[in-house]
Amino acid sequence: MVEITKATLADGREIIYFDDTPHTDRVLEDSRDLPQVTPASEMRRDPLTGDWVAFAAHRMNRTFMPPANENPLAPTLPGQLPTEIPSPSYDVVVFENRFPSFAMGMEDYEEDVDEMGLVPRKPAKARCEVVCFTSDPELSFKDLPVSRIRTVIEAWAHRTSALSALPEVAQVFPFENRGAEIGVTLQHPHGQIYSYPFLSPRMQAIVASSQAYEGDLFQDILDKEREAGTRIIAETEHFTAFVPAAAKWPLEAMVMPNEYAADFTELSSAQRDDLAALLKKLYTAVDRFFDGVEKTPYIAGWNLAPADPTLRGDVRMHLQLFSLMRSPNRMKYLAGSESAQAVWINDTTPERIAARFKEVWDA
Amino acid sequence: MVEITKATLADGREIIYFDDTPHTDRVLEDSRDLPQVTPASEMRRDPLTGDWVAFAAHRMNRTFMPPANENPLAPTLPGQLPTEIPSPSYDVVVFENRFPSFAMGMEDYEEDVDEMGLVPRKPAKARCEVVCFTSDPELSFKDLPVSRIRTVIEAWAHRTSALSALPEVAQVFPFENRGAEIGVTLQHPHGQIYSYPFLSPRMQAIVASSQAYEGDLFQDILDKEREAGTRIIAETEHFTAFVPAAAKWPLEAMVMPNEYAADFTELSSAQRDDLAALLKKLYTAVDRFFDGVEKTPYIAGWNLAPADPTLRGDVRMHLQLFSLMRSPNRMKYLAGSESAQAVWINDTTPERIAARFKEVWDA
Repeated sequence: MVEITKATLADGREIIYFDDTPHTDRVLEDSRDLPQVTPASEMRRDPLTGDWVAFAAHRMNRTFMPPANENPLAPTLPGQLPTEIPSPSYDVVVFENRFPSFAMGMEDYEEDVDEMGLVPRKPAKARCEVVCFTSDPELSFKDLPVSRIRTVIEAWAHRTSALSALPEVAQVFPFENRGAEIGVTLQHPHGQIYSYPFLSPRMQAIVASSQAYEGDLFQDILDKEREAGTRIIAETEHFTAFVPAAAKWPLEAMVMPNEYAADFTELSSAQRDDLAALLKKLYTAVDRFFDGVEKTPYIAGWNLAPADPTLRGDVRMHLQLFSLMRSPNRMKYLAGSESAQAVWINDTTPERIAARFKEVWDA
Repeated sequence: MVEITKATLADGREIIYFDDTPHTDRVLEDSRDLPQVTPASEMRRDPLTGDWVAFAAHRMNRTFMPPANENPLAPTLPGQLPTEIPSPSYDVVVFENRFPSFAMGMEDYEEDVDEMGLVPRKPAKARCEVVCFTSDPELSFKDLPVSRIRTVIEAWAHRTSALSALPEVAQVFPFENRGAEIGVTLQHPHGQIYSYPFLSPRMQAIVASSQAYEGDLFQDILDKEREAGTRIIAETEHFTAFVPAAAKWPLEAMVMPNEYAADFTELSSAQRDDLAALLKKLYTAVDRFFDGVEKTPYIAGWNLAPADPTLRGDVRMHLQLFSLMRSPNRMKYLAGSESAQAVWINDTTPERIAARFKEVWDA
């Protein structure tokens, strides 16, 4: 059982504790004198590509690699400087990002950039949240006990439900960036939940593919992958982990439920248990993937069905976990082809990636 | 006048010299005993996004930051180890990449990955070329005299014409990656020309936007940008340099001809002269952009109209030049939102970028 406690930080942001062990020390008051960050997030649509781009100039000043004694994601211990979490302990905690890319509370406007008539702009309204996986700054997601991963899933489900219900939100995107190699500014184990006021280019493409496909695209992908077998990493009662047949990254894995589910809210308790155990094994394998690399840098992102009820049926939830690491000392850079044209070149093959996953799976 | 000389390297690859000064020392024989690289490039279509991904496993072993005396892009001087360029001098030289992402010469096949019926795969047929801007390894593009930049444009035009004529090629993409910060493996000043057997996701989006627009999208963007003025960097007789109103990167500039041109082959001699002078100023400003940074890492990519004659009219050529540098000591990382969902968050604004360009333009 997870106990949920809500409170408010000094500047009005929401904080939500998800406790799977008894805590009697919840501190609901934030003692800090915290200056309000005025979000100035704006979004503009590129007339050439049709993509929305978000501008968050207030993020220029965000916290960057603070010393350990200023870890803003640690619990606030008696006699120490207050952190973002007023309580002296927590299991899993979620709070609104102090430097959000998308934020609420801006004044409404909807106009064209310089009256261009070509580049619409408006406030980038949605919410960005931080999810602390554990109060121990030394752990990684894979080090959490399965029961704690289960609590993280509970938190994801809670937030997906709450954020999807906001009229501004079109898509909820829980993800984790891990590793200084990809620019992570805080080493404390945590993920983020972005919500977008539009469908991301990836989600738009998935919806279009799914709608254009006769039948259940996701079910057929799973069935075909099982039939082929060469890219399957692991199968459990409720989930399958595999390397996509057109993987873009030097390390990539996908996790998909064996039966349709739009997002975390539609997973049964048994499915959540099953997923928690599978994620622990998968993330462990990621850290065994490269010889001599104890912490593989990675990005893990959950593709969840759009909030729009008419589109929900088009997308089955799936995790995309990938790394830019090519070998123990070399990273893949997103250079001209990837960054400028969005054409990915992969120097390995999905089958090799899967073979390596299977090699280290039970190591 | 540019004199064009073609020759063949030891492993059969084509090399083409573009000389704007007299050379009497062209060496047309490559003395090396060069083992043939068997290209194994394959492309597969992602069933979820519809994007083609290229697999080039043979690239895993490509040359990585060789010591200066093994610079493969230097001319071959008497008594020294032979390089990729057999001649002892050159002005601008183009040759086929030894480790290409897209290559010709693979056996034809067109089938499904593991008979999935969902993931088509076939050889990734097209050509990838290297363009050496100068024989001096210490220079950058911006250091070239305008007359030499003019020769580079001549080379781009020549190669665009030749590559577009290949039946396998759908799009030609000349670009330069500059800086170790973005993974450049050879410091010698050079660019690349990729050709793609499909339209890149960016080009597909541009074609779709252009077709859906009533009127001339590119002309209207230019007109509106001039009217607004706030993002214009420089205007010349034939070209305009500006910061796109929805710029994705912390430093970004676009250069577009004032009148329609599909690609370099359609530029008059006067337009090429004008462009060469403008590029020298623009690239110089890029290296003045960040205080204390002498070599700003950047990606410069030319969006050229598709090879398909029925689509050429939809796209006006334009340069996209951008940097992942946010400030002298900080890079932008493409983390979860950008890499996993293709949603860009920019921590500055296009207007600030343009103001900075104008500040350093005549410095």
